Amino acid sequence: MSRILTGIQSSGRPHLGNILGAILPAIHLSKEAGNESFLFIADLHSLTTLRNGEHRRDYVRAVAATWLAFGYDTVKNTLWRQSRVPEHTELNWYLNCFTPMPMLDNATSFKDKVEKLGKSAVSAGLFTYPVLQAADILLYDANLVPVGKDQRQHLEMTRDIATAVNSQYGTDVFVLPEARIDEKIMTIPGTDGAKMSKSYNNYIDIFLPANELYKVVKKIISDSTPLEAPKNPDTDITFQLYKLLATDEQTGQMRANYAAGGYGFGAAKKELYELMVEKFATERERFNELMAEGNPELERELQAGEEKARAVASQTIQRVRDVMGFS
Amino acid sequence: MSRILTGIQSSGRPHLGNILGAILPAIHLSKEAGNESFLFIADLHSLTTLRNGEHRRDYVRAVAATWLAFGYDTVKNTLWRQSRVPEHTELNWYLNCFTPMPMLDNATSFKDKVEKLGKSAVSAGLFTYPVLQAADILLYDANLVPVGKDQRQHLEMTRDIATAVNSQYGTDVFVLPEARIDEKIMTIPGTDGAKMSKSYNNYIDIFLPANELYKVVKKIISDSTPLEAPKNPDTDITFQLYKLLATDEQTGQMRANYAAGGYGFGAAKKELYELMVEKFATERERFNELMAEGNPELERELQAGEEKARAVASQTIQRVRDVMGFS
Repeated sequence: MSRILTGIQSSGRPHLGNILGAILPAIHLSKEAGNESFLFIADLHSLTTLRNGEHRRDYVRAVAATWLAFGYDTVKNTLWRQSRVPEHTELNWYLNCFTPMPMLDNATSFKDKVEKLGKSAVSAGLFTYPVLQAADILLYDANLVPVGKDQRQHLEMTRDIATAVNSQYGTDVFVLPEARIDEKIMTIPGTDGAKMSKSYNNYIDIFLPANELYKVVKKIISDSTPLEAPKNPDTDITFQLYKLLATDEQTGQMRANYAAGGYGFGAAKKELYELMVEKFATERERFNELMAEGNPELERELQAGEEKARAVASQTIQRVRDVMGFS
Repeated sequence: MSRILTGIQSSGRPHLGNILGAILPAIHLSKEAGNESFLFIADLHSLTTLRNGEHRRDYVRAVAATWLAFGYDTVKNTLWRQSRVPEHTELNWYLNCFTPMPMLDNATSFKDKVEKLGKSAVSAGLFTYPVLQAADILLYDANLVPVGKDQRQHLEMTRDIATAVNSQYGTDVFVLPEARIDEKIMTIPGTDGAKMSKSYNNYIDIFLPANELYKVVKKIISDSTPLEAPKNPDTDITFQLYKLLATDEQTGQMRANYAAGGYGFGAAKKELYELMVEKFATERERFNELMAEGNPELERELQAGEEKARAVASQTIQRVRDVMGFS
């Protein structure tokens, strides 16, 4: 039985890139026999980059609604907001006291931030971010943490901090988690062909009202091949996105249209848009239902998740308090 | 009405130096009309230097028992263990995200630690210590924080961090505390004449059983003036300690004895020891009563204090969560 822990960023509304690249694979993994998924919305982490409170509230709700709309099973698994389980920040402090400064100084993510922004723009929160991550993981006795290559170092830190505590107290306070490095993380192109990302403002929010969604799809960049000429589908962004969503048959048909000529990018974009609306019809409806003002369902789901999360977290924190003399 | 916030170190059992230099003046201040004292045992902070859990438990109890034995009024005031009010570590995280790295890099206490121990022996906990201090203070809307000169910079940091939050959210989230610098902090000599301190191992634990206390007092260093010769009381450690505890009349009598000759240091030490036992008779008895195994009184006092503290802390944290989008 593997307990898989995943933290979800909440510094924006989930877009198509997040859904195809992270959410669907994670839901798939959570459904495998013998796996139990612990999934938290990392709203405490988001404070390192996002200060606006209204935005944070909106993003957190949208993240939760997206996972639920795509069928994340909260009966089998656990979904919660990090900030609602106070054990995260409590453990964060304890672990800070077992984290040598050079470990954080040497974190690639920190060095990148200092280089990019200058040290005075980097907060103590950003600096100690990997320690809060360690707390997130260790609090739930997670065995497995799926991470991108860029997060591999942070998981090593988690293991180092856990080992420092375990060896100090001559006892197994923490479970050492293993990384599950996803080598073939899908990169979803944005409307400009670069990796789809909120920060590049090239993302597609599939939950937009249909007419707005169509407007975004129409912004996808295409080259200037004239309508009549045959087109190369493999260098076209619209086709790449279509291929990610369509059946093999649909993809084959569009590929043929491109090759034949007389088929414009506008037509391809319209097909992509229609496919999105059709393919995600249930999810779009469910998302809007969950996000609707006055619907208590989302809050109820999260609060139930927080109770489940606390049941586990409170046991771990009790072990920690016991050995460290805080009980 | 001033709300005075004081954090008490708990990295050792309180000794005579702590009692005369810190505890009695603080209790005196708490009794002044219009003052309300908030006093917490900084057990979270102690993790930066003390890892042994059994010692921490013992020290925390001894600290609480000392304050209570010396008459700290927990009806008018509030006494609690920092680690039992989870809002401290929650606010600590939020404030970390508003604390620029250079502010902590420039903290004198941090630079001293790095110089003394080397950076690899300094933990992220030690580095971010002033942020947790800021959380301790801001959580209780304290107006006044009595600090030694060495802590003045930390209070400035608290004000800077509070100002950063207040100006971010265009609202008065935090009360800006004022420092109350105690210029004439009493330095109590230890048994070797240096400042009495746990780390110099020259301290007098006034709660020791009488025979053990006498042994410690007998260790006080004195010079080799022969018994018959007159002695200079003003260069003698025993006399200095005696003077701190005795009435003017008693002091005058001992001064005369020193000057007269034929009065040995052993006799002076015996008088000092007897004075301690007599002067602190009530406190010694009360301390032992509170520390007695099976007596639930101490734990009850602390838990009652923690309820009072949380009533205030939970209101502040709610304000913070509201503006930052965590509610």
